[in-house]
Amino acid sequence: MTDSSTGTDRIAPDWIAVDWGSSRLRAWAMRGAEAVAEAASDAGIGSPGAGGFAPALIALIAPWLQAGRRIPVLACGMVGSREGWVEAPYRRVPCVPVDRGALTFVSGTDARIALAIVPGLMQASPPDVMRGEEVQVAGALALVPGFDGVICLPGTHTKWVHVSAGEVVSFQTAMTGELFALLSRQSVLRHGMAGDGWDAAAFDAAVSEAMSRPERLAARLFALRAEDLLAGLPAGSARARLSGLLIGAELAAARPYWLGQPVIVAGDAALAGHYARALAAQGLRARVLPGAGVTLAGLVALRAPGD
Amino acid sequence: MTDSSTGTDRIAPDWIAVDWGSSRLRAWAMRGAEAVAEAASDAGIGSPGAGGFAPALIALIAPWLQAGRRIPVLACGMVGSREGWVEAPYRRVPCVPVDRGALTFVSGTDARIALAIVPGLMQASPPDVMRGEEVQVAGALALVPGFDGVICLPGTHTKWVHVSAGEVVSFQTAMTGELFALLSRQSVLRHGMAGDGWDAAAFDAAVSEAMSRPERLAARLFALRAEDLLAGLPAGSARARLSGLLIGAELAAARPYWLGQPVIVAGDAALAGHYARALAAQGLRARVLPGAGVTLAGLVALRAPGD
Repeated sequence: MTDSSTGTDRIAPDWIAVDWGSSRLRAWAMRGAEAVAEAASDAGIGSPGAGGFAPALIALIAPWLQAGRRIPVLACGMVGSREGWVEAPYRRVPCVPVDRGALTFVSGTDARIALAIVPGLMQASPPDVMRGEEVQVAGALALVPGFDGVICLPGTHTKWVHVSAGEVVSFQTAMTGELFALLSRQSVLRHGMAGDGWDAAAFDAAVSEAMSRPERLAARLFALRAEDLLAGLPAGSARARLSGLLIGAELAAARPYWLGQPVIVAGDAALAGHYARALAAQGLRARVLPGAGVTLAGLVALRAPGD
Repeated sequence: MTDSSTGTDRIAPDWIAVDWGSSRLRAWAMRGAEAVAEAASDAGIGSPGAGGFAPALIALIAPWLQAGRRIPVLACGMVGSREGWVEAPYRRVPCVPVDRGALTFVSGTDARIALAIVPGLMQASPPDVMRGEEVQVAGALALVPGFDGVICLPGTHTKWVHVSAGEVVSFQTAMTGELFALLSRQSVLRHGMAGDGWDAAAFDAAVSEAMSRPERLAARLFALRAEDLLAGLPAGSARARLSGLLIGAELAAARPYWLGQPVIVAGDAALAGHYARALAAQGLRARVLPGAGVTLAGLVALRAPGD
């Protein structure tokens, strides 16, 4: 658990913003649109289990709470999923990314908080869902007002979101981050992936290879292992090439999204940089925004509509 | 550990055939070309660890050994890899699948055995390797004399092997089995995969989908999760569709191998059946051979050249 506040007795937030995902819980003490303190823990929704959500949240934000005063807490992410605290029913696209009228309120948790959970979005056909990314979309739109185009949110499950006139029109998910983690840590390819380093040229070549011949993907993965066995392949080259193959395959599948569109990539700086670089090789200059920044901006926008 | 022999005191093999892979150790007590007893254990090369190979093997085959007599033991598979007992250097294609003159002999193990390990095959470009499958290729050629065409060996790492005039000309590996295991057991897709059942129509549709639009693969995996969340997807349909998408992607990548070629599929009956069905949908009637049968036939062929 980390707390970047300097003196907890001085924190008196108007409200608290929470991003609660599968593996991480993050909170900001807010005064209006300004974060005056920030805290995070590893109590992702996979960890607390049934009955443990309230204690996990209170443990993190207790320094900001006061007896006799109920502070609004606005939470987004997997906390609203079937495996989360309370299931917040999906809203159906096309629709605005977040809607103050559609929050799910959780009662009976702690007298010091009034908890509301942001619902995710669903798309009937092709079937797709998101939880948490809708807030990032709202944040990107708050940071780039009037943006029409495609927002790419790289992560465990990367989302490609088509927004127009302030609404989410459609979206598509790729499991690229999860595939990379499984293949680089748990498959036979892990033998050649231990170590640091990043071979940008290998990444570029793999993206190009995967995009130009996507039908050959299944034959290219094991080649990373074989090449290491036969000739020795530096871990930084192997990892970059695996990443490039998977991101290239994702770009091939997402082509109807990004082709000819203005694109924002919002996420972890290194990962967003890889996506922006891969798109640049396709002649597309994407705008990159920080992931945590767009999440907070989205929660702020939801808290204070009309900003 | 299983032993199908009826009375161990009656087993007096001429030699012992061994298939020693990553997760399984299997042995046959042989008289000439006939298996008179069979035993297996979970002591794959991943389990015994350094120094534990001899005890694991002896524990399995001890009932067939006699003091004062050294029995030839012929072993194939990952036992000859860098992580195995003794590394048996790869032979380079094009070459015959197995060569009695290229065995790696292991000395100093146990006075009752004379152990030889079959080397795997390597291909320089595109880089690829196999260990164990070369014996299956030899076995398929022993069972279907004069076969020219492509041998598909489905498994954790499926091999597509082009054979001509008794030689392995080239081969290609797909990690389909490992990807299926990782995705169905360890990814977010696992939530919808628990349970039995197999939806053959869902498999067929997914193969066709993956083959006709291979560039869309990355967008199709997460749809299995989303469809389950939104509409409920039976586990048997989800598993069959995941398998179909991955096998379809593999067939797309292996098209230069199987297109217009006679094809043998040799492996576990259920899995080989899926591959044969997917190929049949492409108008290709593959011949199916049992995996254990071809392994043993290959070891027999290697033991008794000129059969």
